Amino acid sequence: MLEEYFKSLLNKKLPENLYNPIDYILQQGGKRLRPNLVRMSAKMFGADENAVRNVAAAFEMLHNFTLIHDDIMDEAPIRRGKPTVYKKWNGNVAILAGDALATLSMQEMLKTPAPAETVLQLVNLLGKTCIEVCEGQQLDLDFETCDDVTIDDYIEMIRLKTAVMLAGCLKAGALLAASPASDAEHVYNCGIYLGLAFQLRDDLLDVYADEAEFGKMIGGDIKENKKTYLFLRALNDSSEEQHEKLRFFFSSDNVDFEEKFSAIKQIYSDLDIKAKTESEILKYVESSFDELSQVHVADSLKNELKGWIEQLTFRNK
Amino acid sequence: MLEEYFKSLLNKKLPENLYNPIDYILQQGGKRLRPNLVRMSAKMFGADENAVRNVAAAFEMLHNFTLIHDDIMDEAPIRRGKPTVYKKWNGNVAILAGDALATLSMQEMLKTPAPAETVLQLVNLLGKTCIEVCEGQQLDLDFETCDDVTIDDYIEMIRLKTAVMLAGCLKAGALLAASPASDAEHVYNCGIYLGLAFQLRDDLLDVYADEAEFGKMIGGDIKENKKTYLFLRALNDSSEEQHEKLRFFFSSDNVDFEEKFSAIKQIYSDLDIKAKTESEILKYVESSFDELSQVHVADSLKNELKGWIEQLTFRNK
Repeated sequence: MLEEYFKSLLNKKLPENLYNPIDYILQQGGKRLRPNLVRMSAKMFGADENAVRNVAAAFEMLHNFTLIHDDIMDEAPIRRGKPTVYKKWNGNVAILAGDALATLSMQEMLKTPAPAETVLQLVNLLGKTCIEVCEGQQLDLDFETCDDVTIDDYIEMIRLKTAVMLAGCLKAGALLAASPASDAEHVYNCGIYLGLAFQLRDDLLDVYADEAEFGKMIGGDIKENKKTYLFLRALNDSSEEQHEKLRFFFSSDNVDFEEKFSAIKQIYSDLDIKAKTESEILKYVESSFDELSQVHVADSLKNELKGWIEQLTFRNK
Repeated sequence: MLEEYFKSLLNKKLPENLYNPIDYILQQGGKRLRPNLVRMSAKMFGADENAVRNVAAAFEMLHNFTLIHDDIMDEAPIRRGKPTVYKKWNGNVAILAGDALATLSMQEMLKTPAPAETVLQLVNLLGKTCIEVCEGQQLDLDFETCDDVTIDDYIEMIRLKTAVMLAGCLKAGALLAASPASDAEHVYNCGIYLGLAFQLRDDLLDVYADEAEFGKMIGGDIKENKKTYLFLRALNDSSEEQHEKLRFFFSSDNVDFEEKFSAIKQIYSDLDIKAKTESEILKYVESSFDELSQVHVADSLKNELKGWIEQLTFRNK
């Protein structure tokens, strides 16, 4: 299990104030989506199993580093049902713990038992992923104060902030198996489309999930005036009157939340935003499958990944 | 020039809000101590000149990443006579710019035109340096609220926070030249002792520099109750009465600075702290030279580095 492995990595490391917050976030679990993508891809391409753990751990560490720093920037108090590092300790601890975790991620990748050239490719992939996630996070911050974000801008932002890491995990499996460059690119693109579909599903669930099943508050994005795909699509498709209403509700913090949520939901319903978003998700899933179909391994080996992609992008929670 | 090279690296990169702060700090110059150490070491070991720039740039970028994040943690408004990134923009921009710069540093190292095994050694060195600097920074933060910091604790903190990066720069030259492991270790240790001497000189200059020549305020460490070598040594060597006075002045923010500075300086003078610190610096410089003497290259090739070590550790500003 990854938890035990992370425990062993951090065992007795000092200073405690640096490593305790890292241990805290790595032990929280979460979906472990990225390690699973690495594992599935490595298996599909027939990579050496012994090398998978380092790569899977490296991506999971990179992901958690971004969470620690994002939570400072968003002043987020809770993640996975527990106080964020920033809240449980403080901003300085969270900055430094994130810095160290990003470095540990790279060190983990460097430990991968593979030829030097392969390890270099993997570390390059990790670096490219990390810089693009930073770019995506900056765009996300920029969008908060920008009034003319387009749907294309938004897709580019989530490509960087969310999709490239899922794509990187899938590509890593191809690199580990020394598969042809074209296979590595196709599985990478498969991950990009998966990531876009995954994020749009996230946007959709914020409004249409069953609260009990979803496990977190419905309408959080609307409450925080987040420019999600649903909002931007509604803005794009709206009449002048609807446009003004959307602008009004998304620029005011003083409106009663129930009132705001139901007004927005009514506009979404009038504009058929749910179906439009679902159709967009379907398009991305099809593109993802199309990229996967161009990977040169037996179809039977692709089924596990295909199943996962369907599960992630058509999930209810 | 490194400035031009940094300009070319960042040219037209987007989003601007991510890359402008990075450009801002990299164009400020500073001593460029770390790139110079890489260059001198590479030359001494006879490494390929074409590979030096990437390595030098990588270490300078890593150093500037630590400055950006340290300035948030210290709430420092000014660095190199200009507003810090944290102050000129804000905390979120500084967190993300630092994250991206650390990643760019690794990517820069990966570009080094050298055999794969060498590049892996260099990236490993960079990662080890980065994690140790984080550990040193955490210890520094811990010491702020710790009343029983020993001189040994302090030396360990500055070894991590300051010395390992100088040592890493020197070791990188040996790695680039594929020199024997023992040479790489000796030049690394040479850098550790250089770093310790360098930091003790810094501590000394805070109290005894000529303000005009030093170019910054004298007594800044005393004003901020920083536990420097001088303070810890004084605490260690003091009578009960002096001990109480030191504790009093270093736990109060409400005392008039002139009064505090002159009282502390008097205790330092009574305890001969200046001479004791200078003698400690001399010991470290001798150890540094001793390590350098064990490096297997012609003595004539060591002169430039030796001259630099003397200049850095016996400097007046």
